[in-house]
Amino acid sequence: MSGREGTRAASKVGPPDRFEVGMDHRMPELLEQLRKAVGESHVVSGDAVGDDYTHDEALTSVPVTPLAVVLPGSTDEVSEVLKVASQHGVPVVARGSGTGLSGAAVPVADGILLAFLRMRRIREIDTENQVAVVEPGGTLEQLNAELAPLDLIYPVSPGEPSASLGGNVATNAGGMRAVRYGVTRHHVLGLEVVLADGRVLRTGGKFVKCSTGYDLTQLLIGSEGTLAVTTEVTVKVQPRFSVSSTVLAPFGTLAEIAHAVPHIVRSGIDPSILEYLDVVVMGSITQASGLELGIPEEVKAGTLAYLIVVLEGMDADRVDEDVERLGTLLDELGARDVYVLPAASGAQLVVARERAFYAGKAAGCDDLVDAVIPRAAIPDYLAQVAVLAEEHGAFVTGCGHIGDGNVHVTVFQPDDERRHAFMRAGFELALAAGGAISGEHGVGTAKLPYFLEMQDPVSLELMRSIKQAFDPAGILGPDRLLGTVHAGPTRAGATS
Amino acid sequence: MSGREGTRAASKVGPPDRFEVGMDHRMPELLEQLRKAVGESHVVSGDAVGDDYTHDEALTSVPVTPLAVVLPGSTDEVSEVLKVASQHGVPVVARGSGTGLSGAAVPVADGILLAFLRMRRIREIDTENQVAVVEPGGTLEQLNAELAPLDLIYPVSPGEPSASLGGNVATNAGGMRAVRYGVTRHHVLGLEVVLADGRVLRTGGKFVKCSTGYDLTQLLIGSEGTLAVTTEVTVKVQPRFSVSSTVLAPFGTLAEIAHAVPHIVRSGIDPSILEYLDVVVMGSITQASGLELGIPEEVKAGTLAYLIVVLEGMDADRVDEDVERLGTLLDELGARDVYVLPAASGAQLVVARERAFYAGKAAGCDDLVDAVIPRAAIPDYLAQVAVLAEEHGAFVTGCGHIGDGNVHVTVFQPDDERRHAFMRAGFELALAAGGAISGEHGVGTAKLPYFLEMQDPVSLELMRSIKQAFDPAGILGPDRLLGTVHAGPTRAGATS
Repeated sequence: MSGREGTRAASKVGPPDRFEVGMDHRMPELLEQLRKAVGESHVVSGDAVGDDYTHDEALTSVPVTPLAVVLPGSTDEVSEVLKVASQHGVPVVARGSGTGLSGAAVPVADGILLAFLRMRRIREIDTENQVAVVEPGGTLEQLNAELAPLDLIYPVSPGEPSASLGGNVATNAGGMRAVRYGVTRHHVLGLEVVLADGRVLRTGGKFVKCSTGYDLTQLLIGSEGTLAVTTEVTVKVQPRFSVSSTVLAPFGTLAEIAHAVPHIVRSGIDPSILEYLDVVVMGSITQASGLELGIPEEVKAGTLAYLIVVLEGMDADRVDEDVERLGTLLDELGARDVYVLPAASGAQLVVARERAFYAGKAAGCDDLVDAVIPRAAIPDYLAQVAVLAEEHGAFVTGCGHIGDGNVHVTVFQPDDERRHAFMRAGFELALAAGGAISGEHGVGTAKLPYFLEMQDPVSLELMRSIKQAFDPAGILGPDRLLGTVHAGPTRAGATS
Repeated sequence: MSGREGTRAASKVGPPDRFEVGMDHRMPELLEQLRKAVGESHVVSGDAVGDDYTHDEALTSVPVTPLAVVLPGSTDEVSEVLKVASQHGVPVVARGSGTGLSGAAVPVADGILLAFLRMRRIREIDTENQVAVVEPGGTLEQLNAELAPLDLIYPVSPGEPSASLGGNVATNAGGMRAVRYGVTRHHVLGLEVVLADGRVLRTGGKFVKCSTGYDLTQLLIGSEGTLAVTTEVTVKVQPRFSVSSTVLAPFGTLAEIAHAVPHIVRSGIDPSILEYLDVVVMGSITQASGLELGIPEEVKAGTLAYLIVVLEGMDADRVDEDVERLGTLLDELGARDVYVLPAASGAQLVVARERAFYAGKAAGCDDLVDAVIPRAAIPDYLAQVAVLAEEHGAFVTGCGHIGDGNVHVTVFQPDDERRHAFMRAGFELALAAGGAISGEHGVGTAKLPYFLEMQDPVSLELMRSIKQAFDPAGILGPDRLLGTVHAGPTRAGATS
């Protein structure tokens, strides 16, 4: 249902006994009320629940079949579903396209999965105010397809065009273009959400600034479905650049790239993309996409890492000039060579880099680090991670949004205990460097143990009390982000 | 203490009886503990409290003398003060430079005013990560003075260079450059704050993106001192543009300017400043600053509004080219003429526009509208406001950040009741247009009645429960933003 095939093995995990026991006698009534809320054909339960609904793209989470998949068609229907869920104390997990990497959209066995396939319209493109209003199931590719003829773009590009706007809001999705344009949080101007008890809340609007009370829009962004269910997203859009140029620079070491990046950022050249890839990732993504960049073997031989820089603008002469300046700068900063890629290969390379996760997954990687650290700390951090990997018998490859300090390390270590120890130590290093566990994927279920263990207890306590304020019964996204467990009558009944 | 003279009349309002009665027997103990926390000489009370501490720049709020002004010198001292305040149930209001326009820094009579004159250092400028770390009393002019030799700038420019970073965080300050660079919220990467009970919380860090739990940084920004007291601000800084050009375009009507703006925004020219001024404001600010722009009388005669556009860049040729394009565009969009101002007059005009508030104040204006609405709704909104003004016998002049939809209307109507009715109706129009009460000044005490009356009750309830989560005893910034009243032992005692 995510626009891609389910990539998980078919072995679904059914609801554990304790939930079934608790639900069995209420189940017919619950399903009846849900069908009344959204229509007979929009409630799916039991064996009819498709595999794709049981997981997202997180590498480490186990597929779970929910009690029911519910497909609302409107905000009112979402509200009705949440009232029913509240009444029964049944947890609710929201799912956009299922392309998340943190397990935040994995259902709970005794809960409802709210899927937004019936709410995927682009409701409005307002060219005067330069905003778009989108339903939560609307995807990035849909939105940009409608914006393109108007010479507009929604520039947040988390690497998966089939991702939904609702999901992007939930994780505060980032991606390669964040170095210039910022992340989801910088583009969402307003939200309509439904609270756990079914009340509808509207925040923000078609304006780019506001100082009228606490910014609930910003609080909801990145809350991974634990505070409310998004039913409409208002985003800022912008003029689409007509010219783009992709520069590839091989470097002897990653440390040299990390050293070069602050100079590029400071130069005022303002790249739209600034990515590093180690040789392993470069090899795997070019192979996976059949891309031949024509880099001479003698250059490849001494290269351990690549820098990709994309410049964009409205004026070809200016972009050419900037490419020239960038080339000179990269030369001075120790690049082994500088290649301005032909337009087609440039675009292909960017797409191939976006698919790096899938290349890693195809190669059998076991987990993914998505830490964010101060940009200048990257060389030290990666050197320490390499030492850690050796200590824990893990093989790691890396790429990342080096302009943002967001590092993606692909981890190969099938042993759960050793991998967990490595991940834990890696996150500790990130925190010690002044960073955080997730730059853009979110905590979800996948990074939950690390988050609960390492996050500052004062901030955790405040987050829990915010959660309590929005969702006192804890029915929204239990067991993820904060690890709060819902305590409704159903589960209480189940354990009796 | 704000870097400007106290502009209020000297008539200080002392604590009302009900508070004095409650405090009298506790006062010596409280002062003793506060002196222990911050040092003898850093606690000021009674007649020693200077006029400047009794107010900020809000036009409608009444000066209030606090029980004590306390000047902490460190985060630890702030923490000690808040522990003492919590113990006594004494409210605390934080004050930066006192340049706010919403009354959020006006003390309460039975409370402590925390002033940050001893915490105004720029702690660090980190050129590699392009961030600065500033104490809450540090001002915008101080920060930019230290950034300038490094060719860096903090671009948020709320119009008052003596404003403090702590105050900017409290109100989510905006200003003229927001159309290109965004507001405070888009530049603050991390905070250190002290909670009401004295615990210290650190949020964010030297990174531009994060998806690791609820974004407490964003929640704290714009909370006007009601959730926590800021003790350190980490902001993103950026390369300083070397070239700037100011374009002035007179228009026959404001509606024509409003119509032109979306075309300019869409053109990709990306101005740093995009301001409108009506003829009254233009007349008063040029007169106040002695600025002669040399606009021919025959052009002035048919002009009702002016558009100021500032373009900035690193390359003089490019800025010149863009000015050329902008000129052609403005011509097509109906400007009566287009003037590229000499550098000195351009800079003077921008400063004069920044001082528009003071020109209005000097002319005796009674209140200020700072509504934000969708950009495209501005012409209708201002036309309706003009009708309203006539109905309520108010004289209004206007200027604003038209690129952002942030409208400043200066209101002359000395009668409280008639003015309140006009303001209320004006805010209702803004909300009906899909806007909000404050674009950048905040709610504070000045706009509190309007906010409580008109804000959606669901969002108000959520804000109150967030307030409750952070500050259960309600000692931080009572009677402002949310109108929550603290219920500590002192006030309870006072009413008995």
